[in-house]
Amino acid sequence: MGEPAGIGGEIALKAWLSRGRGIPPFYLIDDPERLVLLARRLGWPAPVRLIDAPGQALAVFDEAVPVVPIGTAIRARSGRPDPADAPAILGAIETAVGDVQGGRAAALVTNPVHKDSLYRAGFRHPGHTEYLAELAGAPGHSVMMLVCPALRVVPVTIHLALRRAIESLSSAAIVHAGRVTEAALRRDFGIPAPVLAVAGLNPHAGEAGGLGREEIEIIDPALTELRGAGIDARGPLSPDTMFHAEARGSYDAALCMYHDQALIPIKTIDFYGGVNVTLGLPFVRTSPDHGTAFAIAGRGVARAESLIAALRLAAAMAAKRLASVLQPIEYDSV
Amino acid sequence: MGEPAGIGGEIALKAWLSRGRGIPPFYLIDDPERLVLLARRLGWPAPVRLIDAPGQALAVFDEAVPVVPIGTAIRARSGRPDPADAPAILGAIETAVGDVQGGRAAALVTNPVHKDSLYRAGFRHPGHTEYLAELAGAPGHSVMMLVCPALRVVPVTIHLALRRAIESLSSAAIVHAGRVTEAALRRDFGIPAPVLAVAGLNPHAGEAGGLGREEIEIIDPALTELRGAGIDARGPLSPDTMFHAEARGSYDAALCMYHDQALIPIKTIDFYGGVNVTLGLPFVRTSPDHGTAFAIAGRGVARAESLIAALRLAAAMAAKRLASVLQPIEYDSV
Repeated sequence: MGEPAGIGGEIALKAWLSRGRGIPPFYLIDDPERLVLLARRLGWPAPVRLIDAPGQALAVFDEAVPVVPIGTAIRARSGRPDPADAPAILGAIETAVGDVQGGRAAALVTNPVHKDSLYRAGFRHPGHTEYLAELAGAPGHSVMMLVCPALRVVPVTIHLALRRAIESLSSAAIVHAGRVTEAALRRDFGIPAPVLAVAGLNPHAGEAGGLGREEIEIIDPALTELRGAGIDARGPLSPDTMFHAEARGSYDAALCMYHDQALIPIKTIDFYGGVNVTLGLPFVRTSPDHGTAFAIAGRGVARAESLIAALRLAAAMAAKRLASVLQPIEYDSV
Repeated sequence: MGEPAGIGGEIALKAWLSRGRGIPPFYLIDDPERLVLLARRLGWPAPVRLIDAPGQALAVFDEAVPVVPIGTAIRARSGRPDPADAPAILGAIETAVGDVQGGRAAALVTNPVHKDSLYRAGFRHPGHTEYLAELAGAPGHSVMMLVCPALRVVPVTIHLALRRAIESLSSAAIVHAGRVTEAALRRDFGIPAPVLAVAGLNPHAGEAGGLGREEIEIIDPALTELRGAGIDARGPLSPDTMFHAEARGSYDAALCMYHDQALIPIKTIDFYGGVNVTLGLPFVRTSPDHGTAFAIAGRGVARAESLIAALRLAAAMAAKRLASVLQPIEYDSV
């Protein structure tokens, strides 16, 4: 569900309306009544069908939007969040985590939440992802990856002022991001020998110390450690020359030192189709790479490309992960 | 000429070989002997013709590469610069500046130099551009712009470690870059009412102070001053969402707070065709957006797109500047 005052409901209905075009079957954990009203107001042929258990979604999906009800009536209206909805929003996330942890669903796709409303209701996590990590029993281990067909990027530091991102950059954080990313590329993306491109922090990757020393003092030691662990990590690369089409062909993911070093190239290349993936959780989780978009919510104009890409990628990752778990069993001849 | 051990000679010959495809007539200030040998070694049909004065280039250009000789034999070989060439390299730049200042040439296009060789010969300027500004009698006033068909970017701080770029960012520098850029867009690009997009420094442009205060303390006051001067300056914009195709359509140039904020998007979009333009000089100056490329010099494989784009843009800018100087003269009826 995500934040019900945002565009989550309408992009979910749009995704369902696009079923049959390579979109995996999904179900919503939401307030069915608000979805019925939303579809009616927009004039969209999206009938809603209540289900008791995720497994029923497969039979329903062709004909109706399968919904596991959250058991509460949502009070928010489009564009106007209501803090009274916070328990229902968090409850939907908990139900979803229970479903993927319990093997009843293959992957979790989350619609955007509005942190302010949750904070006012007593939520104490820095964000959606940290809450999921805690529910999954893996706090502090997750790594964010942004994916579009042309590029995968991993910001090593994320929501920090640029000055603080530089101060907080550490070899340990780069190594952690590199290890989690490499493991995910093998297991969830089916890449047998992943190549990581590690960006410098400074212009021209510091020009051997002339334009900054973080490459020498922080990034080089991290590269040495990653290579020591058998990971093909290349760099530090000049940040401005590593994202054009030819350069992108030489690696499977780019490790970036700060938010915009990762976000500028991917949003420049593919503004509407980017997917946010949380690596390092015990289950597959993706989300669209945008916010609640209150300003346009409820009008039916929000673009569903990112949610659709998030659904497709979640399904592809879940299939790869399953394949890597289900090793072929060799029987000795009797 | 630029650095004769680099790819400058061969990309200039390639540009001449592409004549007739929208490339303006140009002449080289170079050692004619080395160009003859280079063309012969590569087997390229590029005859070299010496000229005494720039004006003769027009008559020669269709049939041969017009060259104003530097009067010295170059000692460098491809890939191997020789500090003994420094006076000739600097002399070629001085001759070129004399030609544009004297009205004998419409614009100056420079091939890349290798600063190390010049420093060893006693050169004391931080770079090519600062040297040109000094020769032009306009030290400290120039502003760098990078241009490709899809985007124009102006980095307010340039070759500084990222940490130092943040420390040195000032409202005055943003206002200076904004004023010089706006004036150039009107005069040299023929845009009657230019729109400037001003990037934030921090992720999401600081989220109203939650992710850094530079937007509030440095960028907002600069925007107020620019707007007070009648300039349509918008921002501070979230750096990650301002460079995709739709967003680019809403402004004429982006003012960026640091090197990679400007260089990552433009090199991601157009790696080979970017042009470096120096604004704020008394003449039009462009250069290809790459270095000397010693590693591939002399083999004829270097791509000439950026030099060709630099020649075309210089000609277009010179034509616009001329048109803006030659105001239509209104006669009163007698």
